[in-house]
Amino acid sequence: MDGNNQFKIMDITGMNHQISQLVSMMNYARFTTINAVQGLTIDELDYLEDPNSNTIGALLLHIAAVEIGFQIEIFDNRTPNEEELKEWLAAYELGEKGRNEIRGNSLDYYVNKLEQVRLRTLKEFRQKDDNWLYEERKWSGLPSNNYFIWFHVFEDEINHRGQIRWLRQRLPRPIVK
Amino acid sequence: MDGNNQFKIMDITGMNHQISQLVSMMNYARFTTINAVQGLTIDELDYLEDPNSNTIGALLLHIAAVEIGFQIEIFDNRTPNEEELKEWLAAYELGEKGRNEIRGNSLDYYVNKLEQVRLRTLKEFRQKDDNWLYEERKWSGLPSNNYFIWFHVFEDEINHRGQIRWLRQRLPRPIVK
Repeated sequence: MDGNNQFKIMDITGMNHQISQLVSMMNYARFTTINAVQGLTIDELDYLEDPNSNTIGALLLHIAAVEIGFQIEIFDNRTPNEEELKEWLAAYELGEKGRNEIRGNSLDYYVNKLEQVRLRTLKEFRQKDDNWLYEERKWSGLPSNNYFIWFHVFEDEINHRGQIRWLRQRLPRPIVK
Repeated sequence: MDGNNQFKIMDITGMNHQISQLVSMMNYARFTTINAVQGLTIDELDYLEDPNSNTIGALLLHIAAVEIGFQIEIFDNRTPNEEELKEWLAAYELGEKGRNEIRGNSLDYYVNKLEQVRLRTLKEFRQKDDNWLYEERKWSGLPSNNYFIWFHVFEDEINHRGQIRWLRQRLPRPIVK
């Protein structure tokens, strides 16, 4: 992403016009997510604000899990297999399962997961034309289209980034284990 | 908004193509914001999760304040006047000023504010063509365009909706004053 275009919605080299607008928004959302977690330690990524909260680490992995879930649904046209469920279900579901299973990972771990998952989305987008965005698709059983589904992916990310910002402001310093 | 198109990004009657995509996203963001606060009482809208928190009421008014701030900047090409600052500054800034000044309002009050402000945005959008979206504009002093700025308006709303959902799950029941 050209640094001068970071705060613009505009065409991106190698992508169709409308897909570029979508990716511009996804890029900005991701930029702010990464900014929101800069410098966090493992203890901070694992910190539970209260017994029903999610950790910042789990929210980061959730963002990757939602994206990979829609990759499997939309690009592969199937449901997740056993191996994928084993790797991603806790992050997708969050809650008790997320609290139990997602901990002890460094910030690099989460950032790398996010980047790896995103690479595939961008690769697929480069092969799509704009008409694909408007193809009808069910979203949670409701009439929807591909554009909305990928809008929802970054929309859900922003929702959790809002929570990450809230949680980060409430981290104890220093973390007491 | 046609109920069958609520979960699609697509053209909207009376608006240009690209503006329609933007408004589809703004509409969905707003739909989820309103859903997130359904049925809240004045006490719940005024509830402070902790001394540094914002109330859900203040966050709702903030969403309207951000939108009106960009209306003034982008559509009117000026800075807010005294009267506007008096009405909106606490909601725009949040924090201490927000906690002191925004309270005692019903859900209808906030929803009406949001709706009134949005009406003007939609009216202006109906008079714009898609080229306008790509006109360069500074955003916080950075190179940006109108599309990005209005993306940011709903992006900020989703961020705070994420916080509203978090806060709502932690409301005491019943509220003890």
